[in-house]
Parts: sequence; C-alpha cells; structure tokens
Amino acid sequence: MIPRYSRPEMAAIWEPANKFRIWFEIEAHACDALADLGVIPKKAAKAIRKGGNKPYTKARIARIERIEVRVKHDVIAFLTELSEQIGDDGRYVHLGLTSSDVLDTCLAKQLTEATDLLGADIDKLLKVLKRRARQHRLDICIGRSHGIHAELTTFGLKLAGFYAEFERNRERLKAARAEVATCAISGAVGTYATVDPRVEAHVARKLDLTPEPVSTQIIPRDRHAAFFSCLAVIASSVERLATEIRHLQRTEVREVQESFGREQKGSSAMPHKRNPILSENLTGLARIVRAAVVPALENVALWHERDISHSSVERMIAPDATITLDFALARLTGMMDKLEVFPNTMRKNQEQFHGLYDSQRVLLTLINNGVRREKAYRIVQRNAQKAWREYSTEPPNDVPAPYKNWFHYFLIKDSDVRTGRDAKALSEIFNQDPKKFLQGNVGRIFKRVFG
Amino acid sequence: MIPRYSRPEMAAIWEPANKFRIWFEIEAHACDALADLGVIPKKAAKAIRKGGNKPYTKARIARIERIEVRVKHDVIAFLTELSEQIGDDGRYVHLGLTSSDVLDTCLAKQLTEATDLLGADIDKLLKVLKRRARQHRLDICIGRSHGIHAELTTFGLKLAGFYAEFERNRERLKAARAEVATCAISGAVGTYATVDPRVEAHVARKLDLTPEPVSTQIIPRDRHAAFFSCLAVIASSVERLATEIRHLQRTEVREVQESFGREQKGSSAMPHKRNPILSENLTGLARIVRAAVVPALENVALWHERDISHSSVERMIAPDATITLDFALARLTGMMDKLEVFPNTMRKNQEQFHGLYDSQRVLLTLINNGVRREKAYRIVQRNAQKAWREYSTEPPNDVPAPYKNWFHYFLIKDSDVRTGRDAKALSEIFNQDPKKFLQGNVGRIFKRVFG
Amino acid sequence: MIPRYSRPEMAAIWEPANKFRIWFEIEAHACDALADLGVIPKKAAKAIRKGGNKPYTKARIARIERIEVRVKHDVIAFLTELSEQIGDDGRYVHLGLTSSDVLDTCLAKQLTEATDLLGADIDKLLKVLKRRARQHRLDICIGRSHGIHAELTTFGLKLAGFYAEFERNRERLKAARAEVATCAISGAVGTYATVDPRVEAHVARKLDLTPEPVSTQIIPRDRHAAFFSCLAVIASSVERLATEIRHLQRTEVREVQESFGREQKGSSAMPHKRNPILSENLTGLARIVRAAVVPALENVALWHERDISHSSVERMIAPDATITLDFALARLTGMMDKLEVFPNTMRKNQEQFHGLYDSQRVLLTLINNGVRREKAYRIVQRNAQKAWREYSTEPPNDVPAPYKNWFHYFLIKDSDVRTGRDAKALSEIFNQDPKKFLQGNVGRIFKRVFG
Amino acid sequence: MIPRYSRPEMAAIWEPANKFRIWFEIEAHACDALADLGVIPKKAAKAIRKGGNKPYTKARIARIERIEVRVKHDVIAFLTELSEQIGDDGRYVHLGLTSSDVLDTCLAKQLTEATDLLGADIDKLLKVLKRRARQHRLDICIGRSHGIHAELTTFGLKLAGFYAEFERNRERLKAARAEVATCAISGAVGTYATVDPRVEAHVARKLDLTPEPVSTQIIPRDRHAAFFSCLAVIASSVERLATEIRHLQRTEVREVQESFGREQKGSSAMPHKRNPILSENLTGLARIVRAAVVPALENVALWHERDISHSSVERMIAPDATITLDFALARLTGMMDKLEVFPNTMRKNQEQFHGLYDSQRVLLTLINNGVRREKAYRIVQRNAQKAWREYSTEPPNDVPAPYKNWFHYFLIKDSDVRTGRDAKALSEIFNQDPKKFLQGNVGRIFKRVFG
Repeated sequence: MIPRYSRPEMAAIWEPANKFRIWFEIEAHACDALADLGVIPKKAAKAIRKGGNKPYTKARIARIERIEVRVKHDVIAFLTELSEQIGDDGRYVHLGLTSSDVLDTCLAKQLTEATDLLGADIDKLLKVLKRRARQHRLDICIGRSHGIHAELTTFGLKLAGFYAEFERNRERLKAARAEVATCAISGAVGTYATVDPRVEAHVARKLDLTPEPVSTQIIPRDRHAAFFSCLAVIASSVERLATEIRHLQRTEVREVQESFGREQKGSSAMPHKRNPILSENLTGLARIVRAAVVPALENVALWHERDISHSSVERMIAPDATITLDFALARLTGMMDKLEVFPNTMRKNQEQFHGLYDSQRVLLTLINNGVRREKAYRIVQRNAQKAWREYSTEPPNDVPAPYKNWFHYFLIKDSDVRTGRDAKALSEIFNQDPKKFLQGNVGRIFKRVFG
Repeated sequence: MIPRYSRPEMAAIWEPANKFRIWFEIEAHACDALADLGVIPKKAAKAIRKGGNKPYTKARIARIERIEVRVKHDVIAFLTELSEQIGDDGRYVHLGLTSSDVLDTCLAKQLTEATDLLGADIDKLLKVLKRRARQHRLDICIGRSHGIHAELTTFGLKLAGFYAEFERNRERLKAARAEVATCAISGAVGTYATVDPRVEAHVARKLDLTPEPVSTQIIPRDRHAAFFSCLAVIASSVERLATEIRHLQRTEVREVQESFGREQKGSSAMPHKRNPILSENLTGLARIVRAAVVPALENVALWHERDISHSSVERMIAPDATITLDFALARLTGMMDKLEVFPNTMRKNQEQFHGLYDSQRVLLTLINNGVRREKAYRIVQRNAQKAWREYSTEPPNDVPAPYKNWFHYFLIKDSDVRTGRDAKALSEIFNQDPKKFLQGNVGRIFKRVFG
Repeated sequence: MIPRYSRPEMAAIWEPANKFRIWFEIEAHACDALADLGVIPKKAAKAIRKGGNKPYTKARIARIERIEVRVKHDVIAFLTELSEQIGDDGRYVHLGLTSSDVLDTCLAKQLTEATDLLGADIDKLLKVLKRRARQHRLDICIGRSHGIHAELTTFGLKLAGFYAEFERNRERLKAARAEVATCAISGAVGTYATVDPRVEAHVARKLDLTPEPVSTQIIPRDRHAAFFSCLAVIASSVERLATEIRHLQRTEVREVQESFGREQKGSSAMPHKRNPILSENLTGLARIVRAAVVPALENVALWHERDISHSSVERMIAPDATITLDFALARLTGMMDKLEVFPNTMRKNQEQFHGLYDSQRVLLTLINNGVRREKAYRIVQRNAQKAWREYSTEPPNDVPAPYKNWFHYFLIKDSDVRTGRDAKALSEIFNQDPKKFLQGNVGRIFKRVFG
Repeated sequence: MIPRYSRPEMAAIWEPANKFRIWFEIEAHACDALADLGVIPKKAAKAIRKGGNKPYTKARIARIERIEVRVKHDVIAFLTELSEQIGDDGRYVHLGLTSSDVLDTCLAKQLTEATDLLGADIDKLLKVLKRRARQHRLDICIGRSHGIHAELTTFGLKLAGFYAEFERNRERLKAARAEVATCAISGAVGTYATVDPRVEAHVARKLDLTPEPVSTQIIPRDRHAAFFSCLAVIASSVERLATEIRHLQRTEVREVQESFGREQKGSSAMPHKRNPILSENLTGLARIVRAAVVPALENVALWHERDISHSSVERMIAPDATITLDFALARLTGMMDKLEVFPNTMRKNQEQFHGLYDSQRVLLTLINNGVRREKAYRIVQRNAQKAWREYSTEPPNDVPAPYKNWFHYFLIKDSDVRTGRDAKALSEIFNQDPKKFLQGNVGRIFKRVFG
C-alpha cells in the first residue's frame, strides 16, 4: 500500500486513530457489560467511557508508541495510556480480557468497514457497466477466441458478461464479510475462564458482529484466508476486464480507447503515444491483491491456541489488499465510465477477415444440405484457408461482384459446392444482416443479466 | 496427483472413460433438444443415443487418442469416433455446438461430482470430530499460546474448535459447488448464433446444472478460481489440525499419538521411532492443494471471448487438487478416529509449569483486592519468573507444604502480597478444582457448536 | 504431470525402476566403502552387488509395494526385497545408514539427471532462436510499448532478446544444478554416529555429487527451493515468448503464425480457425511450473533435524515441474523452429499508423532547431493526435503528395512548424530508409549477444 | 512495508529523495556523454550538472508531484521541475532517452544498494552464528526427527547447519545482485535509434552497472524475478531458524529462550508469559517476503517491447521485500546474539526418553553379533516400545541398577538377547560418554563449515 494507489476513506480505516478508537469502544462496551454483571462498579464503567472517549490525536498516539518501545506490547501500551486518561477507575479496564480479544475483534470491525467500502465500489462499477452495456448493446464487433476472429458478437454483450462477473463478486464479497464479522471476548485460551460470555455477546451486539462459536485465544484464521481469497478473485476479474481493454486499444485493433487528459503525456520520448496505462496499471494492481492469498492461507495453521506469526502478515496484507483493491475498483469504474468506444472501427475490423466469421454457418448449411460432417468441414476449411492466406501475405484486391467477400468467392469456386441449393444458401448467409440474428439472443441474455 | 495419494472413487471421476461418458451425455441430450425443436430428425436423436450409449472401453479410448494425434483436437477426435459408432446419423451430433460447450459443461459436471465426494469426506470427518470431542470433553490439558503454557482448557474443546472450522468448510464447499455447477451450450462466442438457448436449458436440467447467464465461448473462470480457493482454505484447515497433532505427539509433550500398525516401522535406522507421519504427510498434502490457487487465479483473465491457456492448467489442477484433498480428508478422518489420547500425560504436563497457568487469576484477584493494575502486574510477573527460572535451569525440589506449587510459594513470600486477604484468595485459587470452572463454559460452547 | 504433457526420457527419470536402481547404487557403493574400511566383509560387498544388480522389473517393484503396505515405510520395503535377492549377506546392506541418506541422495541424482535434460532442451532452443534471429535480422517491424506502436525495430532483434534471456536461464540452470547436486550419508541426525564420513565421500564421488557440508538427517531444503525457483523463472521466460507469438498471430496483427498440421483442425465449430494453440498451451504450462515454487519454499522450514512434510510435496512437484518444463521447452523449440513469419505484413502494419513511429525524431529535430522541449512536445503531440484520430474513426483517404503520411502532412500544416529549416528536416526524417539506421545498431547488439 | 518493520537505512533507499537523486545522476551522466560525443554543447552539460545537483528537498518533491497530477507521467514531471532549476540548457536533458532508460537504470541502482545492505546483514548474522556455534559446539542435545527424539547431536552443530545455509544465501545474494545490476539507455524500443550506445556505456560505468545486452524499452524482467526468488529463499531460511527457536522455547522443551527486556510484558492477561515473539514474528515476516515471488514471476511476460503492468507491482514489492527482509535479518541476528541457551535442560530432556536414542547402536550391535537384520529390528523395536509406553502413561519409577535406563533394562530382560556377548555390548553402548564419539565428527563438520 502506497499513497499513489490509495484513497483516503479506505486508508483511514487502517490508520492508528481508527484502530485505537475501536479498541477503546471494545474496552468500554466490555466495561458496560461487566458493570451490568456486577463485576465492576457501574460508576467505574461510566468514568471509563467519559475519560477515554476522546479522539486519538497525534499526541496520544505518540504517547502510546513511546510506552510500547519500553514494554514491547502494543495493547499494554494502549491500556497504560488509557489509564492515564481515566485515572483510578482505569484499573477496571480490560479486566479478564486478553489482548487478542481486543485485537481480533478490532480487526473484524476494520475488515467489515473495508468490505462495506469495497461493496460500494462494486455497486458503482456495476452501475457504469450496466449503462455502457445498454449503450453498446447492439454495437456489433467481432468475437475472438485465441485472439483469432471467431464470430460476431456485440460490445454490449461483452460488457454484460463483465457485469454478471462483478455481480458474482458482489455476492462473494457478502459471504466474505460474513466470514470475518465475528467477535471474540473469550479470554486467554477461549474458555471464558476470566470473562463471562455475556460480555462477548454485549460487545458483539454493539459492534454489529456475531460471537465466534469457538475462539481459542483468537478468532480462527480460516475465516481470514477465505476473506483474502475473495479479494483475490475480485482482483482477477479486474485483471480480466483490464486485459480486454488493453487488447481492444492495441494500435491494430483500436476499438476502444481510455480517456486521455488534456494535458496528459503518454511518453517522455514519443509525443504521439496514447497508452492504455490505466488498464495496464490495473493488471499490476491485481497481482498485488492476489499476493495476499498465499500468506493468508499460511496464517491458518497457527500453533495450538495461537501463535503470533499471523500478526505481522495481517498488519501488512489487510491494509495493502483492501486499499489496493479499493483503488483498483475506483480506477476501473472511472475508466469504464469515460471509455471511448469506436463502433466504426469495430465494423472495419470485422470485415478485415473476408467473411470467415461465418464459417460455422456455412458448415451447418452444407451439413443440412446433406453433406457429411467430415466432408463439409474439409470444404469449409480449405476455402477459409485460401481466403486467409490471401489476406496474410498481400493486400487483397477488390472482391469480384456479386460475392460479398473472398471466403464467399472461394467457396462458390469450389467444385464440391453445388451450384443450386448450396450456392443459394451461401448467398443468404453472406447477405444476412448480423444485427437481425444477434438482437434476439442478445436481448434474451440481457434479460437474464439485467432483469 | 499420484497413486500413492489418491483414492479410486475420486480418481475415477477424472479418468477418460468418465469424461467421454459425460461428453456423450451432453451431445445426446443436446440432440434430444434439437429433435424436439425440429432442427434434426427425432429418429436421428434416437439413433445417436442408441449407437453411442456404450461404455468407453480401453479400445474406444485408444481409437480416440489415435485420431487426436492426427487432427490435434480432442473434441473432434471424440466426435469422429462417435460418428463411427453411430453411422449416418452421426452428422447430426454437435450441430451448432462448439467444443467448449462440451468441455466446460463436462468440467462443471466433474467438479460437482468431485465436490459431492469432498462433502461426504467432510461429513465423515465431522462425525469423528464430534465423537472424539464429546469423549474428551473434560479431559483437561494446558492451553498454549506461543508454544508456552497459558491457561487450562480441555482436549474436547480443542476438537470442538476444529469441528466448527470444518463445519464452516462444509458451508464453503456448498457455495463453491454452486459456483461451478453451470452449463453453457451457447456456441462459438456465446451468442447462441447456431444453437437455440432451449438446448442449453434442456442439457442443464438433465445434468442438474444451471445455465450460465453469460458465457463467452466458455464459462467464465472466476467461478473456478473461487472453487479452488475454497479447496485451499479447507487444505489449510487440514494443516492446522495436523500441526496440532504433530505438536502434541512430540516426545516432550506426548499427549496424543497416531495409531501405529502392528507391523509398521518408523525408521529404517532407529527401531524405537513412532513418528507422527500421517499428520506430517497431511501438512505436505495441504501445500499441494494450496498450490492450485495461484494458477486458478491466473486463469481468470483469458483473452477476449477465450484463449486456451487455462486448459492445460485445469487438466492438472482439477484432478490434482480434488484427488489430493479427498485423500487428505480421508487420511485425517482415519487418523483422528484412531488417535490415542493420553489424559494422564496431559495432567502431568500441566503441572510441569509450577502453577503459572493461574497467573491471570492471581492478577485479577490482586486488582480486586485493590492493588493498582500496573503494580499487580509487576508482582505477578516477578514471581512467575522466579518460578519459571527455577524450572528452566534445575530439576525443582519438592515444594514446601502447604504451597501447591513454586508460583504459589514465591507469591506468598513476596512482601507486596498481603498476608490476610491476598494470601487467602491465592490459596483459594491454587486449591480450586479446574474441572469445576471449566465444565460450565465448555458446556456452553459445546451447545453452540453441537446444538 | 500427465502423459499429454510429458516426454519419455524425462518421465523415465521419475519412474520407480530408475528410483530403485539409484537406491541400489547408493547402497552398493556404501557397502564397497564399508568393506574398504573393514566394517563389513569384502566378500559381502561383492555378494551384495552381484545379488542386487538386476533391473527393477515390474515383478520386483510389485513385490516392494506389497511389503510397503505392511510396514508402511518405503525404504524398509525396498531393503526387505533386496535382502531376498541377496540372501545372507543382505544383513550388511544399509548398515549405519538412515533412510534419508538413500532418499535424499537419490533425489539429488534424479534432479541432476533432470537438469541435464533441461539444459539440453535450452541448448536446442538457443540454437533455433539464433538461427531465426539471424534469418530475420533486418526484417523490420513495428516495436510496441503498451500495445501501441512505438518505433521501428526488427523481428530478428526481438528474437535476439529472447536468445539473451534463455542464455541467462541456461546460466541459472547451471547454478541450480550445483545447488542440488549434493550427497548425504550422515546417519540419523547428521552426526555420522554410525557411519564413517568416508562412506559419504565414496558414494558422492561415484554418483558425481558433492558431500553436503552439514546435513541434519536430510539435505537442507533451501537448496531445493532455489532449484524450483529457477525452473519458475525459466517457465516465465517461456510464457513471455509464447505471449509475444500469441500477440503477433492475432487476426489484426498476423505478423507470424504457428505452423499448422495438414490434417489439423482448429475448431470443431469454425473450420476457418488457425489458432495459436501451442503458445497458449505454453502460457498455461508456465503457470503449472511456477506453481511448484510456493510449496518448495514452504518445505524449507522443516522441524528440528527433519520432518517429513516435504516428502509428499516433492513426490509431486519434482516430476511435475521438470516433466512439464521439459515438455514446454521442447514444444517451444519446435514452434519457433517452424514459425511462419510474414515480413510483408510487418511492413503493412508499420504503415498503418501514419508515420507516428517517427514522433521522437521529429521532437528531437525541433529541439535541435532551437524549439524549447516543452513547446516542441506540444507541437508533435497535437499533430500526432490529429493523425491518430483520423485513423481511429474513419478509413483515411490518400495522403496528398509530397507528404509521406498524415503525420507528416499535419505537421507541415501546423503554423508553429517553420517552413524552411523545420520542414526540410521533417522531410528528411520521413524519407529516410529505416533499414539504414537500424542495421548499425542491430549489428552492434547482435555482436554483444551472439559474439 | 510499514514503519514497525523497517530500518532507516534501507527505507531511505526507497524514498523519493534518493530516487530523484539517482534519476538526476543518470540524466547528468548521459549529458556528459552526449557532450563528449558532440551531440549537445559541453557548456550545456556543465550547466545541467550545476543547476540540478542540489538535494531533493521536500519542496522540490512536492513541486514534482504537483506537475505529475497534471501530466500524469512521473518522469516528465521530474524533467519539467529539473528544467526549471536549470533554465535554458534544460532542453538538452533527456535528449534521445526514454523514461524507462531512467526508471529501469534507477531501479537497478536501488536494488544493488539494497542488496549491499542485505549482504552486510547476512555477514553480521554469519558472525553471530559462528560465535554461538563454537560456543555451544559440544553442548549435547537430543536430535529430533518428526518431533520425536532420534539420536544425540550438539547445539553447536545445529547452528553450524544454519551457518552453512546462510553462507549459501550469501552466495545466492551475490548472484542475485549480478542479475539486476544492469543499465539500459537504449531508447524507445531498445534500438539506440536516438541515443548512441556509448552514452549507455558511460552511464553504466559511472553507476557501477553493466550495459544490458538487449533491452527492449526496458530491462527484461526475468532478472527481477530471479532477484525476488532469491530473497524468498533467504526468507525461508529465516523461517527455518525461527521455527527451530520457537520449538526449543516451548514450555515442555525450554532448551533456549529469547532474551526478554527488563520492562517487557509478554501478555496483557497472563503476567507469567515469556513468549518467543521475535521468532514468531520472523515466521510471519518470511511469509511477506515470499509473497513477492509470484507477482515478480507474473511480471516477466510483458507485452511486446514492454507494458507497464510491472510498474505498480515493483513500486510495492521492491521496497516491501527488501525492507522487510533487512528488518528480519537484523532482528534474527539480535535474537541469536542474545539467545539464552540452557545446556542443563538439554541434558535433562535427553534423558527423558529412557535411552531410546541409542536404538540404532543396539540394532547395529545385534546385527554385528550375527542376528539377522529383520530379527534384530524386531527385538529392538519391541523393547523400545515397552520403554516408551512406560514413559507415556505413568511417571516411571527408578530404573533398577545396573541398568542405565528402561530401554537397557527391557533389552536385557528379552529372551532373544543373549546374556554373554550381546549383554556386554549393550552395557558398553549405554555406558559410553556421548561426548566422546560426537566430538570427532562434530570437529570434522566444523572444519568443513568454518575452515
């Protein structure tokens, strides 16, 4: 996580001031519960809330850090500073709790806060994708498999696919939030030996979390592993959309283009450059978010009731992965919002390939007309390759009328294609308006996706 | 995936015979739907099912492989052999479909079959864990944080925690199954250009899958990435339980022991060895299952409507990860089922540490008696360290009566501990039966977990 | 590792027959050394070699496997079968050795054998790359950064870059081989308590390995982690070259094309397809080889003098990674050997972009003529964008003479470009033969690379 | 990378001030070379060095950042600010260079600076390990395989093994440094189209780098992948040593103990705790360093002459991995330097296991005395298990004289052990001073390691 790739709202979740505020909330709620249970004086609980409920200023944070240098324990440092604020009743703070009760519940709170932001990010992205999908619903472009022209599709349909993918990510994120939204106030080894389970129930309710069914000293880390795996899947979807844009902006393709600032410069050396730097950047950011998965999985197998090896990992990957993904989603949303789309180029590119995208229709037609599949395949393949070869080596001449393209031309010249029925059927194929047969199915798919 | 770590039922899912059987099912169901739609003759659909519905013997598989060498395309090889079986009506097979329609729907089917086995594996493990948890519900043992004795817990509670973790894994597996249980029969770029969506709907229904809302040529790979991530989380839980057993079987701890065959040999050189080889092996297998996650994530960002880079990856990780996890879960279940547990050693180990596991109770008692938290902490810490140091350097002498342990002894000798109220409270702590205060909370947690 | 992606020579290294052969070699060499040291009778050492030196047939391997089922220990099973072959003198086999002495030394031997094959693979690839680089040394094509046309380069220079990269990989492989080429015959915890270090020295010499300076029971796993990391880097280079080919074969680019078998079929649905399936497949295989790195790194931190968690991992990743990489390198070599290259298309593609690839020369010329860098940049950028916009939205008309391209045209029409000096310099730029200025530098680079 | 886990010297390498200083160096050296070649006036080169050679203060950095917001290009922002400092001659800066020439050469410089610090870190660690290894050379402790007592070794020998491992890491680091220590000043697509190769040679010499044989626009990323792989291997070695310490500090083992600050607190709840938090923390930090490998490998396959997806990744992993590893190595060195070692406990632990660590000697003795291997194994195994069982369930009584331990006792009572020769040999084994047979071999190994 570096400032270049972070946004303030998400970054704030991970700043010390927010962390200490949540720690204080946990301690204060616990004291309220302890007071209700008669373990500590009600007056003390009040004094604690009153004394401690102040913002964590730079000065307070610095004070905590100074204490930590000495005691080498962050929660004890926090408690020491807090008791300085509270005075005598400070001794009732943290009574029967263990540090992890505070740390893990706080992490749960931070992760749910972060997830809520990520959810809102995806919602915004979905909105943009829906708008653009509808806008380009019938902008026909070539579909490509293996980077090779296949058959026609529409740019709107491409976007509908990404919409569906991010809707799945939205659902995954909900499940991931539920995974980590648990609270543990269960003492040193999770037996509630020194703290009544009702304290946990109270804190959980106040923080909008669920009590962890069995904590050891800590909340089990399979939850966090599942959480970071979810972020990694989302990041990979970001990469897929970014890769699509990078491909479509290639000089030779240029069906879309990232918006370019009026004063923006693409290259220090080559003033002509307009590079898809946003989508390339997103590709890199996806790698970073994904890099959190393996450490998160390695964090699961802690020793016995806990060891602390996960802690340093989470101090880094929790902010890194959430901040980077938040930034990436926002960048992706902006990019898709302002993406320039060139339907004319899409049209031009389709035609570059001499009608080969209709090869399957030709194949099916020949089969329908009684040609055996194997033979039909050979007929289509050899004429397709003629058309293709033509293209790849020399700028093609104009196709003689009435043929629509070289593929059509070569097919008709093939002695295995019968002049009557076959030729007529081929002519129909090559003269059909693709929009006609696309709009029905695209409409059907849009209904499935957008309702 | 190697025979050593695979079980026949799971392995069979990934064998060519099963794959080709599913391919045939898909083609045959598609033909039924095409016949219903009047695209192909009903008679042809019947002939196809009749001609093709034979087991994929070694001979048939070898025939397909020979054809593939020539055409370099596995589905075309399959179709060629199939049409040899069917005769003339063979030309109606695969009409309007693309290879991926068959491949991806088949993979979906195989993954759901595999998931059902994994689900059954976890169910068996849960059953064993529940039984053992109840059996050892109040077998008290020391809880350890950082590998250091902390406070008392019970062996049953440890197991209840693992039960809860695997129950979460069971839920995750359900979600993962839903992720991959989709069917796509949508043609070359997912536009249904050459195949009616009703064919897809029919095949999906027959195979107990759901139609994919937007396929390109393929089912989007974020689904598979989410699936393999789930397996990786489960594998990490396997590792956590295996690690716990490895620790508890250490020579110095020996609270449990893997069952050891009558003729088993632990070491070729040292006949005395009884090693926790099952749990160590599980630790390794977990690494293998996890290794599928990164490639699965890298598979998401395919180019445009599809490229085929994911294919070789999935040919390996799909069998590898499911077979290995199946084997690991079964091995883990057997291991936990037959695990020898030594409550006597648990008791002995607890006592090794001079009563220090009660340090928090002592701390809370002193605070309750009016000592300031900071001071109380210092009192407890310094006497704990005396007791500890004693232990770590020299075999301790017998503790003088009436002290229960060295910690108790040193505390009483500390001039800051007051003879009346403090001493009495300490005596109560050290004379308490831990079972008493543990059984209530353990019972409460068991109720949460086992209902 | 699956048959589809493996070659026989590499696969044979990992088959049981080879493994047991090496195990026997180690035991027999150790016996020779023990006999020389007078620990066992010379006659026994001879009898052992005589009795055991037979091929490991299927029958022998099956016998070993049956014993292993019972004793649950592979080396003991091997020794039991071996002593059946040898008779009475069999009791002198493995004297003072521990299983790991055999297992780890064998793995070292297998890894060096595998590395030698990989080294030969890279040598073959280098040879092909060198030939093709020289062949296309001055076949000018557009260089692309960010997928956008940048400046001119040559196809030969691209290949020279890959040559240099694989030469680095060749060096890395040498270092990786040295990492793993060590032998350990040091007994149960590496103290030579029961075996003289001279035995190790003898076995090492015979197997062309080096004695491990400090083994515990095993050879330390940082060596293997470094080894698999090296394979992963090589795999990533394979991916880079494969990705280059995939890009260049795109329909819109088509500067190269993978060779296509006479009977090959590209798609079951679309007979026209000629897909870059080899390079896409290589991209996937690279992911598989890389997947070995994390488990290999996780294998390093074994417990104390050893645990066995690494074993299952290595049983899988050692064959998987070496077999897959061997297959990938051979496939890549074949692909590059037969790659069809279309210099005409390269030429056509260069021109598609209206001369913008000269933007830097224009910039430098204007600066040289006294224009301030910032201003020159603005001039070039605005005219580049005019030329670009022209292209991206509409099929461009013919450029009016005497301008070489639209970029040239717009520059001259720009009022900030001065008619005399500037115009003349621009004309020189756009009329220059790129081969002229490329051949010198390309020659210089080729000299650096190929000597 | 977070302040908690970073040290100032390493952090400074990655701060903007250092980066901009190196950028300036590169530009200034390039200008010197250009002036020597007569491309720009000598006077200009001097003016550039004079005008720009000032520290990058906060104010200057802020100015650059403001410009970047506008132009969205970091190098252009840098150049703009620089030309403000220089005045008119500023237009000669960066002439014929491309941004990557500056960025990649700078990264190479930063990585070599970082590597030099890491090398010094390892040197310090090696020094400490050597000292401690010698200090504890003959402090005998039990060696453990599978966490189970195996045979005797010495604590010094353990440390010698780690010394050898880190010496290997030192060598790997040297190789990794050479990998990344290259310079590229080769223009937009690496053809030196606008910059003479002698400029590169000059800059390389001045910065103590080597010219990259073939750069595209950038230095190829296989180099960086190899570099980060090396850091990951080192991190795994850190984890192995940390894991060893964590095990040895377990309450039940306690053969060593991390030093504990006078005011340090181990747990907020349990004042008695002295946890191995440094080694646990190192375990986590190792995961973080390793997490850089996969992204670094994914960075290799950039598109064509370059894309910028690697950039965001490296902005994060380059500082993160080097800073974290530097911190980890320093922490590890401090920990090992001050590690408390308890030879008495080592002795006590050895004896806990009833002499079983001699099982191999007993086995070999019986074989030597003519018992068949299989039978001897059974004799030793059954008596070992008796001794073991005894231990694991009940506190053992005192062993009757003259037997040294329960294993000895049970062996002698076994009717298959012959009273004369066997008994005598056993008595010799159990009465031998282990130091005697260890010191020779340990000495031999120390010589191999420390010379």
